[in-house]
Amino acid sequence: MKFNNLNIRISPSVQIGKNVKIGDNTVIYDNVILEDNVIISNDCVIGEPLNSYYRDRDGYENPKTFIRENSLIRSHCIIYAGCQIGANFQSGHRVTIREYSKFGANCSVGTLSDIQGYVEFGDYCRLHSNVHIGQGSKLGNFVFVYPYVVFTNDPTPPSNLCVGPQVGDFSQIATGTVLLPGIKIGKHCLIGAASVVSKDVNDFMLALGCPAKEIKNVYQIRDRDTGISHYPWPLHFDRGMPWEGIGFDEWMKRDD
Amino acid sequence: MKFNNLNIRISPSVQIGKNVKIGDNTVIYDNVILEDNVIISNDCVIGEPLNSYYRDRDGYENPKTFIRENSLIRSHCIIYAGCQIGANFQSGHRVTIREYSKFGANCSVGTLSDIQGYVEFGDYCRLHSNVHIGQGSKLGNFVFVYPYVVFTNDPTPPSNLCVGPQVGDFSQIATGTVLLPGIKIGKHCLIGAASVVSKDVNDFMLALGCPAKEIKNVYQIRDRDTGISHYPWPLHFDRGMPWEGIGFDEWMKRDD
Amino acid sequence: MKFNNLNIRISPSVQIGKNVKIGDNTVIYDNVILEDNVIISNDCVIGEPLNSYYRDRDGYENPKTFIRENSLIRSHCIIYAGCQIGANFQSGHRVTIREYSKFGANCSVGTLSDIQGYVEFGDYCRLHSNVHIGQGSKLGNFVFVYPYVVFTNDPTPPSNLCVGPQVGDFSQIATGTVLLPGIKIGKHCLIGAASVVSKDVNDFMLALGCPAKEIKNVYQIRDRDTGISHYPWPLHFDRGMPWEGIGFDEWMKRDD
Repeated sequence: MKFNNLNIRISPSVQIGKNVKIGDNTVIYDNVILEDNVIISNDCVIGEPLNSYYRDRDGYENPKTFIRENSLIRSHCIIYAGCQIGANFQSGHRVTIREYSKFGANCSVGTLSDIQGYVEFGDYCRLHSNVHIGQGSKLGNFVFVYPYVVFTNDPTPPSNLCVGPQVGDFSQIATGTVLLPGIKIGKHCLIGAASVVSKDVNDFMLALGCPAKEIKNVYQIRDRDTGISHYPWPLHFDRGMPWEGIGFDEWMKRDD
Repeated sequence: MKFNNLNIRISPSVQIGKNVKIGDNTVIYDNVILEDNVIISNDCVIGEPLNSYYRDRDGYENPKTFIRENSLIRSHCIIYAGCQIGANFQSGHRVTIREYSKFGANCSVGTLSDIQGYVEFGDYCRLHSNVHIGQGSKLGNFVFVYPYVVFTNDPTPPSNLCVGPQVGDFSQIATGTVLLPGIKIGKHCLIGAASVVSKDVNDFMLALGCPAKEIKNVYQIRDRDTGISHYPWPLHFDRGMPWEGIGFDEWMKRDD
Repeated sequence: MKFNNLNIRISPSVQIGKNVKIGDNTVIYDNVILEDNVIISNDCVIGEPLNSYYRDRDGYENPKTFIRENSLIRSHCIIYAGCQIGANFQSGHRVTIREYSKFGANCSVGTLSDIQGYVEFGDYCRLHSNVHIGQGSKLGNFVFVYPYVVFTNDPTPPSNLCVGPQVGDFSQIATGTVLLPGIKIGKHCLIGAASVVSKDVNDFMLALGCPAKEIKNVYQIRDRDTGISHYPWPLHFDRGMPWEGIGFDEWMKRDD
């Protein structure tokens, strides 16, 4: 249904792997590399030219953009030139990823999310819908970010400073939370919904509130009925994770 | 201006009623039913195929999608296959409605709102701009939801649980509020702006704050100048409502 | 790359200045005036017809829309008929600007922002990504608004009242803040992140919290290390400002 070669425009400099599909009304600009089995759905823009293109069209050379193998970009996404999108990436609709953002493997980004450029993601990061990641942010591996979370980066707006937040491996940032500029969140943390994180958060801590305070170790978050803690979550959740079927502890051993 | 039959693509299996208009650059996929007087504006996607389409294109059959009579879908909307959109529906721009969502009659959904699928709406629901409704949520009749409200559904993220919030008839959820998973809001409630609702709210209550607390009965919310309460709002507001011109009490009697 | 005259549609009544560029897949409806050096990027809709067009297509006359000189509209924006966009305007992607909104000169509006119509902006306003400005709001000059801020306008939802907030010159509204209907923020204020502003804020005040309280004069916000205040910000930031290179005090003198 979606791949009929209608109103598609692909620059002659685009490199296209095997078994790539491109949806109707999609444009792919100069110097994009689409690896094997990539699907770009309809109405997308890949390799969107940088600002300087508007000022100097003749001297402009679009930086290389990599979409690694097996990635699925859903409709109406804009991915700027200079990005590196890791293997097995999945996007929702209307995602905007600005220049020189770098995703590891197996990441996903939900509908309407807006990555402001110069952001680094590890492997297996998941951004849900409508997440905003300011320039210069850095996320580890297995970081999940829920809807309407904002990573900010200017401590004294407006200024020329740009200090993005950093989030460690396995941490979860719940819906509607604002991370203030430059704060560092450790590994395996859980940040509660609608928090404002203004100070660093230590590994394995639950933090929440405005401003967010460390409440307890995530091992101590107990289910009211069962008394069991769901955290650290990799011990209790494996769908789509590399420890699926074998268990997190076992996988960690193999990984060493 | 908007209906020139340019770059439109409609599957042969689409059923089209009388006096239907379809805007330029719009795509309508398999098995969509557009009833009489429906307007689909430009750059829309109706009947967007489900995930499984990308994995098994040959065996894929798009589920039926119903857009009932007199509905107006504004430009750049994406409505997934399997949805049922009730009569007289109106959307803003860039709305995303995922699979198997079901709207009663006379609903509206504002610009950028994102309905995550498997959501049920009664009649006369109004979502304003940029509302996010998680999977499995359930809204009664005459529920109005204001900008940047988020309905969440995973109590221990990430997990395999999905328990959407439920909101009773006539309740109002003000701007920027987060409803935590599985909470139930009664009828005729008012939830204040930027609240985090973590517990059930009883009928006719004003609740607000982080976490939201029940403050008072909505009858007791008094205008500073006049001393009159605007709530329950159906007694004081009727624009576009079925009690317009006759009064809510009178309409309730007729409705019995 | 972006300007190839493919699938463009421009009404015969559009007036186009010198050196205007229009991107692929863009539509420009009746009675739009594009001044010299305007760039409309790809997939935009300019002069989007008002609601009444859907009800009475034969008698409908699209109001005039002005895009002043040197403005750059990035891809996928929708600007309604009746808007006046001042000179040197810049937009991000997927911006929606509804009818009869009026921008002064040198403004910018970030990706996904949603201006609800009948809004007035002074000169040099900057809206970052995903800002929502309710109908009837009024912003002075040099007002900067950060991501996920919402200007609301109905004090007793739902009602027929519409009283937008007003923000004075040079004020800064940080990420995730909600301005309640009709509140007035003075000049040179700083509103902290994730605040709910329910009362007027005096000139030069830092206000924050839910509900926001005036904390101190912005001159008293001191950097922990240097002891210097960054505020009022025009004394310390000039990138792109008319006092760039000459200093704010000097510019203020000239301006008199």
